[in-house]
Amino acid sequence: MAQERKRKFWGWGFEDQGPNAEQQRHIAERMAKRFDLGPLEILPAPKESELNLREPRVQPPAALEAICTSSTHERANHSYGKDFRDLVRAYRREYPNPFDVVAFPRDEKELVRVLEWCDGANLAAVPYGGGSSVVGGVEPPSSGNFKGAVSIDLKHLGNVLEVDKISRAARIQAGVYGPALDAQLKPHGYTIRHFPQSFEFSTLGGWIATRSGGHFATLYTHIDDFVESLRVVTPTGIVESRRLPGSGAGPSPDRMFIGSEGILGIITEAWMRVQDRPTYRAGASVPFPDLLKAAEAVRQISQAGLYPANCRVLDEGEAFNSGAGNGNEAVLVLAFESADHPLEPWMKRALECCADHGGKVPTEATKTRTDAEATHEGSAGAWRNSFLNAPYLMDTVAAMGMVSNTFETSITWDRFPEFHRQMIETATDAIKRVCGKGSVTCRFTHVYPDGPAPYYTVLAPGKRGSQIEQWDEIKAAVSDRLIALGGTITHHHAVGRYHRPWYDRQRPEGFANALRAAKRALDPRGILNAGVLIDP
Amino acid sequence: MAQERKRKFWGWGFEDQGPNAEQQRHIAERMAKRFDLGPLEILPAPKESELNLREPRVQPPAALEAICTSSTHERANHSYGKDFRDLVRAYRREYPNPFDVVAFPRDEKELVRVLEWCDGANLAAVPYGGGSSVVGGVEPPSSGNFKGAVSIDLKHLGNVLEVDKISRAARIQAGVYGPALDAQLKPHGYTIRHFPQSFEFSTLGGWIATRSGGHFATLYTHIDDFVESLRVVTPTGIVESRRLPGSGAGPSPDRMFIGSEGILGIITEAWMRVQDRPTYRAGASVPFPDLLKAAEAVRQISQAGLYPANCRVLDEGEAFNSGAGNGNEAVLVLAFESADHPLEPWMKRALECCADHGGKVPTEATKTRTDAEATHEGSAGAWRNSFLNAPYLMDTVAAMGMVSNTFETSITWDRFPEFHRQMIETATDAIKRVCGKGSVTCRFTHVYPDGPAPYYTVLAPGKRGSQIEQWDEIKAAVSDRLIALGGTITHHHAVGRYHRPWYDRQRPEGFANALRAAKRALDPRGILNAGVLIDP
Repeated sequence: MAQERKRKFWGWGFEDQGPNAEQQRHIAERMAKRFDLGPLEILPAPKESELNLREPRVQPPAALEAICTSSTHERANHSYGKDFRDLVRAYRREYPNPFDVVAFPRDEKELVRVLEWCDGANLAAVPYGGGSSVVGGVEPPSSGNFKGAVSIDLKHLGNVLEVDKISRAARIQAGVYGPALDAQLKPHGYTIRHFPQSFEFSTLGGWIATRSGGHFATLYTHIDDFVESLRVVTPTGIVESRRLPGSGAGPSPDRMFIGSEGILGIITEAWMRVQDRPTYRAGASVPFPDLLKAAEAVRQISQAGLYPANCRVLDEGEAFNSGAGNGNEAVLVLAFESADHPLEPWMKRALECCADHGGKVPTEATKTRTDAEATHEGSAGAWRNSFLNAPYLMDTVAAMGMVSNTFETSITWDRFPEFHRQMIETATDAIKRVCGKGSVTCRFTHVYPDGPAPYYTVLAPGKRGSQIEQWDEIKAAVSDRLIALGGTITHHHAVGRYHRPWYDRQRPEGFANALRAAKRALDPRGILNAGVLIDP
Repeated sequence: MAQERKRKFWGWGFEDQGPNAEQQRHIAERMAKRFDLGPLEILPAPKESELNLREPRVQPPAALEAICTSSTHERANHSYGKDFRDLVRAYRREYPNPFDVVAFPRDEKELVRVLEWCDGANLAAVPYGGGSSVVGGVEPPSSGNFKGAVSIDLKHLGNVLEVDKISRAARIQAGVYGPALDAQLKPHGYTIRHFPQSFEFSTLGGWIATRSGGHFATLYTHIDDFVESLRVVTPTGIVESRRLPGSGAGPSPDRMFIGSEGILGIITEAWMRVQDRPTYRAGASVPFPDLLKAAEAVRQISQAGLYPANCRVLDEGEAFNSGAGNGNEAVLVLAFESADHPLEPWMKRALECCADHGGKVPTEATKTRTDAEATHEGSAGAWRNSFLNAPYLMDTVAAMGMVSNTFETSITWDRFPEFHRQMIETATDAIKRVCGKGSVTCRFTHVYPDGPAPYYTVLAPGKRGSQIEQWDEIKAAVSDRLIALGGTITHHHAVGRYHRPWYDRQRPEGFANALRAAKRALDPRGILNAGVLIDP
């Protein structure tokens, strides 16, 4: 019998994926050259046999034994997400607080029984989708009087249950991974058209619980608007909302669970608004003198009612690093798509906005194409490949001693130029202070009529053994500034545990009180994802 | 000194507005002819002097005397909204449970003091915007152990405080009425572009608290998406969210207050996403053989990513009654608008969708126009005038003994044809049983990729003295059916008190528990709009 393909507990993807030894050396050489460093040693990835996990503090009841495991691999794999801090801890073989048990319920009834067990035995229960969290959203709580901790992995709830071809909607189980979801929708001519960078290793339920930001750079940016209704298992019962195209009956029940990060309940199903597979595409990469000029063009486009599918600005450094630019220009990756109509008028008008602000519009850029390759060529293609490949390199970058992470936010257009200047200044200062040298680059992941969502990437040579502390110091500096300047601590990475200090300053106290009260009503013993978003 | 223009406490608008005696007789004659009735007597409107209100049970403290009144006019005017039930009760001179005091705070500080008084003295506090509620959302609670009831009218919080010309947003006080808001935005080239039928006599805060449905038939249907941030006064303090173009930091704080109908706090300010005043328009009225054919075209348009501003389907009866059709055809009133670009490609494609489903597309219909009159001509203009004028006629229609009201919902496209058939059947049966004869007509107010928002109008000859009971019987029949068939009890009229029995069946119990808990956290003594949405 073939063994199940194993996920890397220390990095992105499966064990057979990612750069091989030679490719790793090549990456290390490029990195050393870029930052003028001596040869970078790449630490070996951890092995299960090197982990010395604490004995499980609890055993599942007999009735749940068949769907539970306490194997080292699963406990390690579920105890961390995929943030830089997680990768470094894994490479340190540092697992002081692992889950005791990982449960894999095969259906909703079994999930209810797992939750009943946790609730009755005072065990921390943490829902697990694809484990791609970069905010400490899937790890066991570090405090509380729990007798143990159980990770509840929803991967067996992986099916599209129903497709409504008239309303263009589908009833989908929450544990389905991105590629499997799209594969199941494809025979119906549909696609979820929500592609976060984590798409391969994240799930529908995870996207909804964390307000994931997806494919569309405008309009349908977060998963929120695609949710037609939800089904959620809570310790006090099942909550299911109605399938409604729109409703004004009280505050939206769905919006309370969207972004609740597993503290109120575990999403098991959703009716989702799906999309026709696009057949028309128009795309262009437009160089600009700098990010601020590109931002002006993007502001105009986002206020024009054109709704491009892609509208991502890369600053000079991001464009160069992804192969989309020459390093002296910012680049706007712009694209429209449709399953209904050719796109010349949309593209033409958007390119006029670009030209208005110094964008170098390529010739023939307005042309609508009907081949799928249209999105995979030129600068747009380069950026796309770089974007999809990046997570696979993260553990290697950590293993060679770099400090590498991102922070992302949103801010209104009026404040953006000064905000951006200060964020770059703060990050640059912090990187210099903490690491001696390094880089910070910026792109827009999403844009709105009232402002962009800037996403910053930090890369710097770290000090072995102190990489996490170094990142934490940089993170504190940029997060303090970001919050002081009015941004959000996260546009689409969720809050989890790592963002808590700044989220606590951001959210209104009255709302926190209301959310706490709502949690007590649904989860009276506070077993669900304790420490995330709020304290009891 | 000129007297302040007085609102009609028994009907829509100011005392000097609405049909005169001759016009009223004309309406009565048409109505009698339409339903083959004998001459209809029109009861005289009530006068203040005929009301015999209970003595106020409380007096405001000295510090608040200047901003409070217990005048008969204000007490009567604030004790009812503008639903058919409200108008009939007013004509019956029936005010068994009026407010004791009406407060008009001049700023947020005074509002806080009014709320402190209510909280300390155990008085029911009901926020009042424009008083256009059709769901009993502004009346005093009929139960609870309150020592009195205070209506808090926000009309003095009527200013645009700040305009951000870069992000296209404005900070606006919640008590501003629609026309005053648009007048204040106009010098900046902006418009709120949210025009519920109640626009003249409703306020920004009221729209947000009730998830009002506005001008745009697609995409930005409810006020929800225009809210950038909120400021809310609660009995436990002020809650203010950040101005953010988009955020994924936990469940949205704004979404908890949007649609909360005054039970969690009183909205005093909002940063709103405003719109450029449109300069390009393309509009057409397209006749269809029937509503279901038009619905097919509208489904295609709403799934095509075209986002028309207007996309309202009128069934044969609605089209005839508003002067937009000949009575044998359904009519789609379709329009695009933009401040940025001509609209031929959008309109052309939408009209192709119409033709695909048997729509009779007028010639030259795709033409973009740049004159404001474009929306005021032909069938579209007829429908618009009828739409804006309708509320002014309601009290006359009630006074002549008719039963006249509406119900509205949304439903996914797959269920719509059977849903609509059963709703028309149920309404027709109920009308016949209760009133002997009458009519029910339907239009779509808003449409979504996954379904329409159908809006039904009931008109029937009533029995004097029993009109409310007759309507209640019809309403119970259609609401029972609507809820059983999976609709929402309201797409954009809010829940208030009149919809409670059906809302209670609609909303998931777990969500109600969470909302109750959130209310207790923000309003521990339960003084705010008791009886609306939930019981303690």
